[in-house]
Amino acid sequence: MTDFQGIINSIHDHLSKEEVKGVVASYIPELSKQSVNSLGIFLQHLNGDSFAAGDADIPFSIQSISKVLALSKAIAFEDNRIWQRVDVEPSGNPFNHLSLLELENGIPRNPLINSGALVVADILVTHLKNPKEDFLNYVRTIANDQTINYNKDVAASEKRTGYKNFAAANLLKSFSNLKNNVEDVLDFYFHQCSIDMTCAQLAKAFYLFANGGKCVNNVQQIPVSQAKRINAIMLTCGFYDEAGEFAFRVGLPGKSGVGGGIVAFLPNNFIISTWAPGLNPKGNSLLGMQALEQFTTQTKLSIF
Amino acid sequence: MTDFQGIINSIHDHLSKEEVKGVVASYIPELSKQSVNSLGIFLQHLNGDSFAAGDADIPFSIQSISKVLALSKAIAFEDNRIWQRVDVEPSGNPFNHLSLLELENGIPRNPLINSGALVVADILVTHLKNPKEDFLNYVRTIANDQTINYNKDVAASEKRTGYKNFAAANLLKSFSNLKNNVEDVLDFYFHQCSIDMTCAQLAKAFYLFANGGKCVNNVQQIPVSQAKRINAIMLTCGFYDEAGEFAFRVGLPGKSGVGGGIVAFLPNNFIISTWAPGLNPKGNSLLGMQALEQFTTQTKLSIF
Amino acid sequence: MTDFQGIINSIHDHLSKEEVKGVVASYIPELSKQSVNSLGIFLQHLNGDSFAAGDADIPFSIQSISKVLALSKAIAFEDNRIWQRVDVEPSGNPFNHLSLLELENGIPRNPLINSGALVVADILVTHLKNPKEDFLNYVRTIANDQTINYNKDVAASEKRTGYKNFAAANLLKSFSNLKNNVEDVLDFYFHQCSIDMTCAQLAKAFYLFANGGKCVNNVQQIPVSQAKRINAIMLTCGFYDEAGEFAFRVGLPGKSGVGGGIVAFLPNNFIISTWAPGLNPKGNSLLGMQALEQFTTQTKLSIF
Amino acid sequence: MTDFQGIINSIHDHLSKEEVKGVVASYIPELSKQSVNSLGIFLQHLNGDSFAAGDADIPFSIQSISKVLALSKAIAFEDNRIWQRVDVEPSGNPFNHLSLLELENGIPRNPLINSGALVVADILVTHLKNPKEDFLNYVRTIANDQTINYNKDVAASEKRTGYKNFAAANLLKSFSNLKNNVEDVLDFYFHQCSIDMTCAQLAKAFYLFANGGKCVNNVQQIPVSQAKRINAIMLTCGFYDEAGEFAFRVGLPGKSGVGGGIVAFLPNNFIISTWAPGLNPKGNSLLGMQALEQFTTQTKLSIF
Repeated sequence: MTDFQGIINSIHDHLSKEEVKGVVASYIPELSKQSVNSLGIFLQHLNGDSFAAGDADIPFSIQSISKVLALSKAIAFEDNRIWQRVDVEPSGNPFNHLSLLELENGIPRNPLINSGALVVADILVTHLKNPKEDFLNYVRTIANDQTINYNKDVAASEKRTGYKNFAAANLLKSFSNLKNNVEDVLDFYFHQCSIDMTCAQLAKAFYLFANGGKCVNNVQQIPVSQAKRINAIMLTCGFYDEAGEFAFRVGLPGKSGVGGGIVAFLPNNFIISTWAPGLNPKGNSLLGMQALEQFTTQTKLSIF
Repeated sequence: MTDFQGIINSIHDHLSKEEVKGVVASYIPELSKQSVNSLGIFLQHLNGDSFAAGDADIPFSIQSISKVLALSKAIAFEDNRIWQRVDVEPSGNPFNHLSLLELENGIPRNPLINSGALVVADILVTHLKNPKEDFLNYVRTIANDQTINYNKDVAASEKRTGYKNFAAANLLKSFSNLKNNVEDVLDFYFHQCSIDMTCAQLAKAFYLFANGGKCVNNVQQIPVSQAKRINAIMLTCGFYDEAGEFAFRVGLPGKSGVGGGIVAFLPNNFIISTWAPGLNPKGNSLLGMQALEQFTTQTKLSIF
Repeated sequence: MTDFQGIINSIHDHLSKEEVKGVVASYIPELSKQSVNSLGIFLQHLNGDSFAAGDADIPFSIQSISKVLALSKAIAFEDNRIWQRVDVEPSGNPFNHLSLLELENGIPRNPLINSGALVVADILVTHLKNPKEDFLNYVRTIANDQTINYNKDVAASEKRTGYKNFAAANLLKSFSNLKNNVEDVLDFYFHQCSIDMTCAQLAKAFYLFANGGKCVNNVQQIPVSQAKRINAIMLTCGFYDEAGEFAFRVGLPGKSGVGGGIVAFLPNNFIISTWAPGLNPKGNSLLGMQALEQFTTQTKLSIF
Repeated sequence: MTDFQGIINSIHDHLSKEEVKGVVASYIPELSKQSVNSLGIFLQHLNGDSFAAGDADIPFSIQSISKVLALSKAIAFEDNRIWQRVDVEPSGNPFNHLSLLELENGIPRNPLINSGALVVADILVTHLKNPKEDFLNYVRTIANDQTINYNKDVAASEKRTGYKNFAAANLLKSFSNLKNNVEDVLDFYFHQCSIDMTCAQLAKAFYLFANGGKCVNNVQQIPVSQAKRINAIMLTCGFYDEAGEFAFRVGLPGKSGVGGGIVAFLPNNFIISTWAPGLNPKGNSLLGMQALEQFTTQTKLSIF
């Protein structure tokens, strides 16, 4: 039997000594306060076992990781109708995200790039009675943890400086692919991204994707077929312009955020989450990606 | 001596009978109320003579034509420092204007595309004490006409629906190439574009560009060298993605607007303006371009 | 136990009656001779069982599917050094493949787009003593079938009309990312793509990717880690601009070709191949994609 | 009366002392042999006067300047039918020339970028009985100089290394916008570009464009309307991605080449040519552009 605890301990110890740790995100001022030395790893097995190393219980800003949670809720409302407003293809090109949106008539390439996540947020603003409260409750439910919360400072910080998101939302609106007010959608979106979680909470929140749509307290949140589809989207689109690299090196579906978090999983097996705030030039956690690569290399556990 | 009156009368009569008149702009709701049958032509010679045909005294929304007037005022404030924030190259590519802005780090290709005009507007908001009042006064002064005014309905209409401009302004802001608030710059910009003028007023307002920087009442508004430079920019960038076509067919520097107006001129000779609200697929007045092509063909007057 | 034979029979019968069958590729004149009514399915299980339906024993042009076989051989020579000359990211943008190559200094996005496959071909031309003979022998070996052959007519047909490939090869050469003569690389490449295989042969040739690098006659052709990496590339890049869609709908790594073939597999389980010459607008076999979607839906077998 | 000789002498002397002289083109190996210290200026007035300074009688490779001469000959054959195969808009975007060609279905943006010049070359190969001989004779005729010749070494050098032109020609061929063999068109094109001329010869060859289509020995080579159109294209497209800058700073139609030559003119007045092999980062002669800017600043002679 695999010695998960031993493996993640050893990876944690090894990577803690790395000198090159990447650069903490500064474009959201609040995020720049994080320490580049934080490193947490958490593994939640579907058999109930769990394993922690390092800063696995310190909350951090999940940022783009929230896009997957929002997507799962939007699909619960819209089922396959959602794909009329957002595609499922990798975005490929780091140079011209807004231009692709222009070229493709306001249909974002996938729900995990910012423009696509804004369409998803718009759907939730349409369907949820009290969007911010209701979404937070959904996240608390699937993670089975009532202590999860928004970080108001981070949300406010992003609202003050998130001009690229304002640009994307207005461009979507110009193509009539945003039904609600730009301000309402962005207010919801900045809150969604500002959720704080620990590695442990994050692994539990993603339990449903590894478990055919059933969350950690065994409620079927989305059909198994939709869980598989979201997993496919994570694999092809979950790591900005580095999705291919992550599939290639790690071989698991997952999602990263600029707060330094990554969560990945082997369907029907386990969820593993990491947190290390230093990012590589493509915006993914430098040590997090290394930790996951070492983990799948040592355990030989991957979808491939 | 050239029979200007005879020539513009004949062009007016001929084009009035054209069945294909283009499509009136509808993206700004207020503009869609214009009649496709309007057609005005006005010629102001620098020797003082002037010639009118058709609807030359009916006011229309000058829209993008205002960008040249704003540019001349911004240059009066900033001289060549302005070129640190906006380039002077044709934009070339209709498919990805916002993307070019991303690729080129927030420096718009030229001051006559929307993103460039927003930078110019930002400069005026910085320098003018009461931006809207002061700019209107400038326009009234150079055109020597105190009756020129903003059209508040058009400005409000564009503010409600101008999502692409909101997108561009926020993208500029994300590159720190907008110093004032997005809302303030856009409020000014939508007013600037909403100015109503007749063909006759428009020809007078552009007198300074044909006359080495001296406006119609003989005041040197900008140095002769700057007037020449603005003229060069009009020639290479004044007609959206059809600047080459206009230079090729008409051979005069000029500027068009989606309200259906065009103004063009032969330096040291004359200014000619046309108004016909039906646009061609590239957004320029269909009959206006034909009128000007016929005019330079018949008179053999062009810069080439 | 899953009734594979029953399932593929039922899918075959059902899809044979579809009226919309896609369009047979015509840009390579020889391929246009194929019948849109052909439909073959073959499943090779790693336990040795195999199942066939329809035209599973009729040879067809494997075209781009050959890129994976060439990649596996190039990796055998160059190991990870190959990634200095080609990246592993999805290409994303159907509009400007050559432009991405220009923007990214001649480094193709991945080895399964044409430009990347040309770099792989260049590597084989460098390393193989008699490139065409040696590569054919490699394919025969891994498929354990000495009857597999090039289709000289198809190779010649593509050589006469493959101007886009000539363009891509010359562009690569301009960036010094092609070491051999353009003509030599293209001659090899057109032959590589012209290989004829049946569904049955194709499934056997891809056995090694589903089997940790060991081919059907149990020889370790590439290390297990490299097999996993190639599988990841197939998943993220194997279906032109529809890789996300295939992962989303089918959930298996695989590769398609404009000859109408698709091969996909569940690691450590089975390989399934289909052939139906009618293509959808994105260049993938229309019925083939439907067959595979129905197969994974009915069997619930996917990597997600 | 303007002291042309004094002005060009003074500009020559001043610029000769500049320390920053740009970088001699090296992508065509033969061109890299030129001295960065060469500097020639020649002015041919339409009244017959001419003025020379510095290396005005040393031959250099005219390269892209030849595109204008080829265009004038192609228009003589095809008149306005040529515009069905090539557009007249500035290319704008330095990042993706080949991509624009893909996006726009193989219609080059204008006849002065490489892809457009290849279409022009294709037209000449179609119409001329002995393309290379006949084109050379045309150039000799319009310049009234039988000593002008191809530089076989330069042509051969470009043929060996001109992979980007091979790429462009094949891409055009894939869109059926090249009627002759790629090799034949490129052979002609590389010869066309390899013509050697002195500043004096170049000014005379462009006499027809400044003189309403009549060449230096008074033969009407093209109609006056076509001469004006070619002049407009030179102004909007003659300086790669710096056409706007040249119009802005110099204010004359003209054309540059990577051999370091520039020719520009004021219609009905004069032609001025410069040669200085050091290029700026955008591929135009650094000292040549400065010389022309100083010339139009001092003489106040420009089309604006």
